[in-house]
Amino acid sequence: MAWNTNLHWRLPITCLVLQAAMVVLFGVFVRYDIHADVHWWYERNRKNLSNMENEFYYRYPSFQDVHAMVFVGFGFLMTFLQRYGFGAVGFNFLLAAFGIQWALLMQGWLHHFEGKHIYLGIEGLINADFCVASSCVAFGAVLGKVSPVQLLIMTFFQVTLFSVNEYIVLNLLKAKDAGGSMTIHTFGAYFGLTVTWILYRRNLEQSKQRQSSVYHSDLFAMIGTLFLWMYWPSFNSAISNHGDSQHRAVLNTYCSLAASVLTSVAVSSAVHKRGKLDMVHIQNATLAGGVGVGTAAEMMLMPYGALIVGFFCGLFSTLGFVYLTVASWVP
Amino acid sequence: MAWNTNLHWRLPITCLVLQAAMVVLFGVFVRYDIHADVHWWYERNRKNLSNMENEFYYRYPSFQDVHAMVFVGFGFLMTFLQRYGFGAVGFNFLLAAFGIQWALLMQGWLHHFEGKHIYLGIEGLINADFCVASSCVAFGAVLGKVSPVQLLIMTFFQVTLFSVNEYIVLNLLKAKDAGGSMTIHTFGAYFGLTVTWILYRRNLEQSKQRQSSVYHSDLFAMIGTLFLWMYWPSFNSAISNHGDSQHRAVLNTYCSLAASVLTSVAVSSAVHKRGKLDMVHIQNATLAGGVGVGTAAEMMLMPYGALIVGFFCGLFSTLGFVYLTVASWVP
Amino acid sequence: MAWNTNLHWRLPITCLVLQAAMVVLFGVFVRYDIHADVHWWYERNRKNLSNMENEFYYRYPSFQDVHAMVFVGFGFLMTFLQRYGFGAVGFNFLLAAFGIQWALLMQGWLHHFEGKHIYLGIEGLINADFCVASSCVAFGAVLGKVSPVQLLIMTFFQVTLFSVNEYIVLNLLKAKDAGGSMTIHTFGAYFGLTVTWILYRRNLEQSKQRQSSVYHSDLFAMIGTLFLWMYWPSFNSAISNHGDSQHRAVLNTYCSLAASVLTSVAVSSAVHKRGKLDMVHIQNATLAGGVGVGTAAEMMLMPYGALIVGFFCGLFSTLGFVYLTVASWVP
Repeated sequence: MAWNTNLHWRLPITCLVLQAAMVVLFGVFVRYDIHADVHWWYERNRKNLSNMENEFYYRYPSFQDVHAMVFVGFGFLMTFLQRYGFGAVGFNFLLAAFGIQWALLMQGWLHHFEGKHIYLGIEGLINADFCVASSCVAFGAVLGKVSPVQLLIMTFFQVTLFSVNEYIVLNLLKAKDAGGSMTIHTFGAYFGLTVTWILYRRNLEQSKQRQSSVYHSDLFAMIGTLFLWMYWPSFNSAISNHGDSQHRAVLNTYCSLAASVLTSVAVSSAVHKRGKLDMVHIQNATLAGGVGVGTAAEMMLMPYGALIVGFFCGLFSTLGFVYLTVASWVP
Repeated sequence: MAWNTNLHWRLPITCLVLQAAMVVLFGVFVRYDIHADVHWWYERNRKNLSNMENEFYYRYPSFQDVHAMVFVGFGFLMTFLQRYGFGAVGFNFLLAAFGIQWALLMQGWLHHFEGKHIYLGIEGLINADFCVASSCVAFGAVLGKVSPVQLLIMTFFQVTLFSVNEYIVLNLLKAKDAGGSMTIHTFGAYFGLTVTWILYRRNLEQSKQRQSSVYHSDLFAMIGTLFLWMYWPSFNSAISNHGDSQHRAVLNTYCSLAASVLTSVAVSSAVHKRGKLDMVHIQNATLAGGVGVGTAAEMMLMPYGALIVGFFCGLFSTLGFVYLTVASWVP
Repeated sequence: MAWNTNLHWRLPITCLVLQAAMVVLFGVFVRYDIHADVHWWYERNRKNLSNMENEFYYRYPSFQDVHAMVFVGFGFLMTFLQRYGFGAVGFNFLLAAFGIQWALLMQGWLHHFEGKHIYLGIEGLINADFCVASSCVAFGAVLGKVSPVQLLIMTFFQVTLFSVNEYIVLNLLKAKDAGGSMTIHTFGAYFGLTVTWILYRRNLEQSKQRQSSVYHSDLFAMIGTLFLWMYWPSFNSAISNHGDSQHRAVLNTYCSLAASVLTSVAVSSAVHKRGKLDMVHIQNATLAGGVGVGTAAEMMLMPYGALIVGFFCGLFSTLGFVYLTVASWVP
């Protein structure tokens, strides 16, 4: 990449301008939610609550898992294109650090805008991570082909569209779900995941660099895969209703993920001419179990229902990846 | 490995048959526990509980740590046999994904079978991870020597035996512990760990591949070691009684683990002819502190009691590893 | 390193003597805190609390994140000096395992000594991890230049000084903060971090090995960076007051960290002659956002206030690193 004197200043200026804009917009719009404000003390007395009832304790462990998925999971998943190992992790870091700030604003304006302010709490951080997860996947499609500046711009538009889509489904189409559950919120996430996954996987297929994937790259990529797989139950349950809904979302996602591993191994081995396993299939399809059960994770699917979802997600995701040359299909 | 046309279909068919069997058995037997069921609402009103009293919030952070130990910890621990780096992580993933499903059924039938159903909740997931941890250790003994199909069959039998042994100790020998604590549950785990660790370490000693361990393999293996070491307090406390028992199990395990690091470094350095450290000793013995304190972790050992356990576990584990050529001994 | 017969025994004897001393001192001084003692039952009945009100459930998820920062975060951060990859992780493990035990005693004597005993609970473990974090940073400054024995001695003195400094600020200067919050406790941590970071970074600059940093080392170091960055909100909130304070400390740290990524990328790219990014800048400066907001993390900074802190921390930290040849400056 040739950088002339002008180009040289593009990245620094883009970063500083975006960050300065964030500071100003946060200054004007963002305040603490009642659970993160010193007025929590009044709220707590008024409702006769324990500090343990602060939203923080219901959400924080799940939030940290989702945060790890975005930064370690998606970051390292991309490293299997060996040439872009450090770039994958580093650029993912940059785009996610910008994306979460912009997502807090966009989602705040569209969903949590009361009076003149956005009220920020732990649930806001989780929603921002969900939104950025879709940008991380899209990043995979363009890895090695775009500059950091282009990445930041892409993230800006993706986060904007994601939030607007979320608004249309939730507020204009009135597709409200009784319990205020995550079903609609995650629809947007999986819409983004699906669209970009298509682009992402096709691109990998065509990519010359794929062939240069080597031993160590595979192990680094497995770090990404495992962190995504392990923490997906947190992803699907992070903003579920308190109590049994959050509990059930974890059980269902866990079952679906376990089932998708076996069926994707089956298909991967069946299509390989010498019965070997293709690591890319495993990475692709095992995660399909988490995506597939996502929107319905907190419903009364029953454990066997979740296994069936995972069974078919692993099956079709791997078959789709192998046989659909135009695009791979993720249920 | 030569795969003829017949062999080619062995892995796909094994995976699909096992997974289909799981779907059917889950369909017949597994239902949600009251804490994960929509009826939680009635339970909660009846007992006048907060949602925060749902078992989920007592267990979930520990569960995720144990889950990380099984998939990242054991997976990467095995990578120090450089030739099997990706295989180690990938096959560990496959056997664990199958093992947890089968363990949910076996442990459910033997311990949580009420009326006609197994009632599944977060504690069931933790117990399944415990059971599979013993399979992961056994896997280390046969790494590079067995096919994925053989691994799945081995896991099937190991999980079955583990659960039956657990049943004999707990229900037939009536070795109940007052608080319904983890002491008996973990006995089974450590029984499995001990038996297979013997096989595992001897095998490594003899293995030609050991010598080919290189710089990067060591670092990947350290990822495994550290995740096991860090999260062992969660492993030992995950199903302890609520409150002080769970708290105490963490303190004791933490102390024991810290002590075992120093004594195993001492022995490793003393036996090396130039005083250097052998990474395999460190990995073996530091974990001994967690295993050693396991069954008694929630008792009133006192912090110095836990340190003494760790002291001797690190000492004898490393000495045993070095001098017992027949088998290494893990307390 | 030439080890004669005498030297050969230095490390084993140092380890065993230190560990034996810890056992004796713990035996004399350390007992369980009421939240980890069987007497919790009486406490709970007396105050009519739920088990969920046990300090354990307020602190444990944050504790495990801080623990991961010390062992995985700092351990892997050091691996970018390629020659010392395994040594970095392994020696960090050794010094931290000793350091936490000594810190429990020193901090216990100076802050939690009631009657004749130190009462140990989950908050003690977190404070010990904080103290050891400063030793880990100091370790970076001497990596590859000291033996394990010297490291243990260095850790012994650093933990001692850290605790004494903490005592002077808190108890002699009477700099108490109303809520019993973390502001003072962390002052000590950041004092240590600041002093040693200076030494640490200058050393890296001068180090010949720096040039040998290669692809895989960078990826291993990114594991360290990401675990530190992701879990810094837990670090800054781990011993905050229950409820809104802990919640707010997380929000503020999260905002500050996100902002510091963009400004440090800006500076790193601006000073590079071809506009590229230097990974060492990213690692240094992104963490500055967490350090910078530390002491004030639980105050009513407002999200934009936290962004401003992160903005300037990333900016000055990277500029300082580049232009101050005497020492790099961390706010």
